[in-house]
Amino acid sequence: MEYFSNIKWRAISLTFCIVLSFPHGSSGEIPPKPTGSVTVLPPIKPNDGPQAFPDAEKENLPVFTMDYPRIQIPFEITLWVLLASFAKIGFHVYHKITVWVPESCLLISIGLIVGAIMHSVHEEPPAVLTSNVFFLYMLPPIVLDSGYFMPIRPFFENVGTVLWFAVVGTLWNSIGIGMSLFAICQIEAFGVQDINLQENLLFATIISAVDPVAVLSVFEDVSVNEQLYIVVFGECLFNDAVTVVLYNMFNFVAEMPVVEPVDVFLGVARFFVVGLGGMGFGVLFGFAAAFTTRFTANVREIEPLFIFMYSYLAYLVAELFAISSIMAIVTCALTMKYYVEENVSQRSCTTIRHVIKMLGSISETLIFFFLGVVTITTEHEWNWGYILFTLLFAFVWRGLGVLVLTQIINPFRTIPFNLKDQFGLGYGGLRGAISFALAFTLPDNIGRRQLFITATIAIIIFTVFIQGISIRPLIEFINVRRTNRNLGTINVEVHCRLMEHTIFIFFFFFYFEMQLTAATTNNIWLENIGELHF
Amino acid sequence: MEYFSNIKWRAISLTFCIVLSFPHGSSGEIPPKPTGSVTVLPPIKPNDGPQAFPDAEKENLPVFTMDYPRIQIPFEITLWVLLASFAKIGFHVYHKITVWVPESCLLISIGLIVGAIMHSVHEEPPAVLTSNVFFLYMLPPIVLDSGYFMPIRPFFENVGTVLWFAVVGTLWNSIGIGMSLFAICQIEAFGVQDINLQENLLFATIISAVDPVAVLSVFEDVSVNEQLYIVVFGECLFNDAVTVVLYNMFNFVAEMPVVEPVDVFLGVARFFVVGLGGMGFGVLFGFAAAFTTRFTANVREIEPLFIFMYSYLAYLVAELFAISSIMAIVTCALTMKYYVEENVSQRSCTTIRHVIKMLGSISETLIFFFLGVVTITTEHEWNWGYILFTLLFAFVWRGLGVLVLTQIINPFRTIPFNLKDQFGLGYGGLRGAISFALAFTLPDNIGRRQLFITATIAIIIFTVFIQGISIRPLIEFINVRRTNRNLGTINVEVHCRLMEHTIFIFFFFFYFEMQLTAATTNNIWLENIGELHF
Repeated sequence: MEYFSNIKWRAISLTFCIVLSFPHGSSGEIPPKPTGSVTVLPPIKPNDGPQAFPDAEKENLPVFTMDYPRIQIPFEITLWVLLASFAKIGFHVYHKITVWVPESCLLISIGLIVGAIMHSVHEEPPAVLTSNVFFLYMLPPIVLDSGYFMPIRPFFENVGTVLWFAVVGTLWNSIGIGMSLFAICQIEAFGVQDINLQENLLFATIISAVDPVAVLSVFEDVSVNEQLYIVVFGECLFNDAVTVVLYNMFNFVAEMPVVEPVDVFLGVARFFVVGLGGMGFGVLFGFAAAFTTRFTANVREIEPLFIFMYSYLAYLVAELFAISSIMAIVTCALTMKYYVEENVSQRSCTTIRHVIKMLGSISETLIFFFLGVVTITTEHEWNWGYILFTLLFAFVWRGLGVLVLTQIINPFRTIPFNLKDQFGLGYGGLRGAISFALAFTLPDNIGRRQLFITATIAIIIFTVFIQGISIRPLIEFINVRRTNRNLGTINVEVHCRLMEHTIFIFFFFFYFEMQLTAATTNNIWLENIGELHF
Repeated sequence: MEYFSNIKWRAISLTFCIVLSFPHGSSGEIPPKPTGSVTVLPPIKPNDGPQAFPDAEKENLPVFTMDYPRIQIPFEITLWVLLASFAKIGFHVYHKITVWVPESCLLISIGLIVGAIMHSVHEEPPAVLTSNVFFLYMLPPIVLDSGYFMPIRPFFENVGTVLWFAVVGTLWNSIGIGMSLFAICQIEAFGVQDINLQENLLFATIISAVDPVAVLSVFEDVSVNEQLYIVVFGECLFNDAVTVVLYNMFNFVAEMPVVEPVDVFLGVARFFVVGLGGMGFGVLFGFAAAFTTRFTANVREIEPLFIFMYSYLAYLVAELFAISSIMAIVTCALTMKYYVEENVSQRSCTTIRHVIKMLGSISETLIFFFLGVVTITTEHEWNWGYILFTLLFAFVWRGLGVLVLTQIINPFRTIPFNLKDQFGLGYGGLRGAISFALAFTLPDNIGRRQLFITATIAIIIFTVFIQGISIRPLIEFINVRRTNRNLGTINVEVHCRLMEHTIFIFFFFFYFEMQLTAATTNNIWLENIGELHF
């Protein structure tokens, strides 16, 4: 039955993919001719009407009409989300795979297959992985998920290390990789001499950004010790400030003939604006949310909405002022979490947590899926030398960076990182969709834009597949300190339940006694208690 | 403190309204000049980038930039939703008002105020109450909310009456009002002789549609007996089939010179297609959802998503084929509810219910709010005679219809409707946003389109305010049979909890005993039990 279900699901998923590939017009515009076997009558005024309408020449009232363009956008979004959800179900039905292959790899693979199908029928992918859609709609839920469920105490115990790796580590990687690649560009054999230093630095910034989505999806399956987990996790979230500033700076500088020293100083100033501004907005909106939930006692059904609205506002306002939106939303979530969970009802609390997890999960699924789709459908420019050296340098500089930075930070740590931890830190630095989206936002006046996009995709696929699949066996092999967390959780949960049930017993006896007393004076109670056959 | 909070909230809401009215460009397009006190540098390529960028002429790296157009859409949506939520909080803080004035009236009033503010600063309202946005995004959550929480047993016990009122009642109203208005149009003094019979019938169809949103928001506060509640409620939901067919038919016919008998026959055929097709799709997707949730044991975090996706797909597919989408989504919710709630986890179940309520609540709030805003900002064409007679005929024909139809259906009912129930039925027939949206979808070739829109708004405002506010005192005055529902619910809930706690007790003792046995062999348990000081 299990095997059959598995086949069934794969068949259903594949059929779905094939069916889905049909109704896509070019880049989501209204297709010239909707598909389907029905005689479709073109709609006349009004287009917004609840039904399409025949031409006046047709004599009789139509009994059966179809109007696809009107519902196209929500319909296709719903179908893609449903397809991604089926893929998730499918993976978990075939359980053995998810033990060794991270879900991110599976999703990218499915995306590659779907992309191949769409490419073969000459369909355009849905115009959804534009940078705007990614940064404004797909990334916030994931970051909110990460921020809301971040373990607070381990985070603040390691905040120095986190910021050290996030800021200095990203700088180290960007500049190191950028300059190495520039050195490689000087070699005539590779044919990339037209890429100047600034462009190399810009590209290096894009691929230095360790991606929270990719890292999370791998580290959740591999139970490393909390120190390691929180440092990698925190680094992903907080390197956004540095990435934003460096990207800005190198983009700006790439277009300028002369770089003045004051610009470097302004760059440093901008880093503080971006980082502290992001945190400031996050705290502001976090406190606003906490304050608002004091007054929601009579509107319990919309309580979760405030949490989502305030977090999203923090993100958008940070985007508005071009400061680190990831830091804003993470800080907002961190700030408001405990106040909100005290103020809202139990149901709202459950709903908030579940909806955040749900949105984060489906966003992550869609991102990897579309990563696979767009990989096939984008025009690539391949250059063996540049791309292979990119992979090499990314790997080498990450490793060197972790080694050097750990040596410097270890004396300040209560629990120093041993070599095995450092391996985990270095090897766990996966790149993902943020690099991808940043690559797509490269301005068109950069000559080798396609090469950069191809190289970014290459490094993402490499880290997610090779490092993502191999990290678990390697960590088990070298015996990195594992977490006690799971065991602790069971203990905690058992004792919480014991306490709950104890309290219930007391209330039950108290209550039952009250009812028995009341029952002698109230017929309805007697009738109903009688039903209980107590 | 309470009074101060109330003032504070009103002040905050008003300030918010004023602030919000500023950044609106014309119909949501990119404003030519973003407001704000910062020096805004126009963005250059790439527009999609994570930050805006200065021109190349500027020498130094900008430390502070702003890019509003990029985030405009999600930002404004979020702000409007937040404003609507604050309005809801505000109403409930000032609790006495909501006892006598339904929330719908308050929201329309706030909308009128905001509309007036926007009009005075010559801002366009956000282009959100287009019919497409209303029918595709704002209506489905409300109807899903209604359908998902519809009491099943009372509904099926009254299904005959519901369908009788929904179908025949709506027909009666449409044709009656239409023909009466046509008779009025013949009187020269009113100056509306150019409106022919078909246009009158079309307009009558629009305003005959009793609106679920308006009715629910009033009947929830007034605890009438279930029979009355379920018939009015069911009628609102299921008259959609008739409204769709009639609207189609009269719209089509209004453009045709000759109406053939076969068209009337096709109209009847279309009614069956629309009604049964809607229910068919609903049942199909409902079973698909029920089936899918059998396999979601390993993906608990995205379980609620399936419910929303399938319901929305049922709605969209029905819209695609121009059949009754409201019936589709209600039937889908009815079909899948019990299967789904058995299959999903407890948390998912809570989340689903809460999110449905949340989305329905906020959609309803937004609809009434925008109804108020657009009332001010639309161009009106007033005609005293036509509009007053519209109000009169709507009222009279509704009353007559209820009387006549009840006389016919009462012999078939177990609990016949007495005259007081009939009053509730007739008086509770409020019109709302569905009529409004349908009015906006009238084709432009109808000469008196503006008059129809103005008349529709007039009747909505009249029924929601006059009937909505007066229905509660009138029902109490004439002493309509009230519900026992609330008392029954408390009983049911108490006994459910008694049962739960009983079960917990047994498990607790059993469990505790197991642990004590295990404790002798396991140190960890002893340590932790010791902590409990048991």
